[in-house]
Amino acid sequence: MTAKLTDAERKADLAPLLANGWTKTKGRDAIEKTYEFKDFVAAFGFMTRAALWAEKLNHHPEWFNVYKTVQVTLSTHDAGGLTMLDVKLARKMDALA
Amino acid sequence: MTAKLTDAERKADLAPLLANGWTKTKGRDAIEKTYEFKDFVAAFGFMTRAALWAEKLNHHPEWFNVYKTVQVTLSTHDAGGLTMLDVKLARKMDALA
Repeated sequence: MTAKLTDAERKADLAPLLANGWTKTKGRDAIEKTYEFKDFVAAFGFMTRAALWAEKLNHHPEWFNVYKTVQVTLSTHDAGGLTMLDVKLARKMDALA
Repeated sequence: MTAKLTDAERKADLAPLLANGWTKTKGRDAIEKTYEFKDFVAAFGFMTRAALWAEKLNHHPEWFNVYKTVQVTLSTHDAGGLTMLDVKLARKMDALA
């Protein structure tokens, strides 16, 4: 679960995220996405729902919020790069947004 | 309320915040502070309580969270710098943290 993604997993699991608004972070084995909402209540509502899932997965995002914008970066510190935990949290965030 | 802080207000209202862990942001008329909590639940709990106050004040922070750390930057976009809204939100955040 916390092993870095294999080449096969990158093709099967990461590629669909990259086709859905996630981008590779420069200089790190990480992915990032910027979500835009209607207003702060919608943005923070998303963050709250995502926070509950993050805590449940015991895997937490790096994220920046200003008003209706939420910038998320995902990577697995313990593994030194992207793992299936990041894929799971990214999918969940896309479903919540 | 949304006028930039006067020199007198900076002495009376901003100075106590700068003595309490807030610092001036480089290159902007803004203040910032990094809060450290016990864990993600504590950090996001703080953010949730602060978010309710931010919405109530109709004044929102720029903030970055990773696990138990929350970095906050406050400034008033409409005024192009620090106003009493930032002072109020900073005081409230310190009280909540």
